[in-house]
Amino acid sequence: MIIKKTSEVPATPVQMDGAKDVNVRVLFGPKDGAPTFAMRIFELAPGGFTPFHEHPFEHEVMILQGDMAVVSHKGQTPVEPGQVLLVMPHEKHQFRNRSWDKPASFLCLVPVAYQK
Amino acid sequence: MIIKKTSEVPATPVQMDGAKDVNVRVLFGPKDGAPTFAMRIFELAPGGFTPFHEHPFEHEVMILQGDMAVVSHKGQTPVEPGQVLLVMPHEKHQFRNRSWDKPASFLCLVPVAYQK
Repeated sequence: MIIKKTSEVPATPVQMDGAKDVNVRVLFGPKDGAPTFAMRIFELAPGGFTPFHEHPFEHEVMILQGDMAVVSHKGQTPVEPGQVLLVMPHEKHQFRNRSWDKPASFLCLVPVAYQK
Repeated sequence: MIIKKTSEVPATPVQMDGAKDVNVRVLFGPKDGAPTFAMRIFELAPGGFTPFHEHPFEHEVMILQGDMAVVSHKGQTPVEPGQVLLVMPHEKHQFRNRSWDKPASFLCLVPVAYQK
């Protein structure tokens, strides 16, 4: 059994094209021996966002903090703590911090094969 | 993309032997077409606990609320919001609400094949 404080897991900048002011903490992944899926927290500075992109695997997401929006091909939907999202494989998506003065964060899980 | 409010997902009692005063909400599972893993919230009434048990699949857990403990073959460890846990396949474990007057809850993910 591995127990971690999320605040003690290193935060590293997301350097993908189309990302702005986003850090990621890999809570559980291949280095922990996670068998099936990986757990990460993404932290968005005020005005920050992830890339608008798609990939061959799903996301399962829980909004943890802040005033956020998820963008799909249908447009932008506000989301907040108390909400969870399932983004299907090959579905375009983006997560945005709608606030200009407060941080936002969300938990995001993926199949472990896609976590470096 | 599926977006849900966790409070609107039905809560059902966990009726396994050895469980006391625990409800589960299946946020994403086979009925949602989740490809790889399932996301659930477990809610423990004051003094409630899950069974002390093991199974052939892992858990990835985030403590959401309350004053909790996780039990392993090594004994009992306090856990609280801000902490995450990886329980390996076949590792015995139990989650307990240590409070006698406040609820507790945790997010718990498993491979989708093990979610009914």
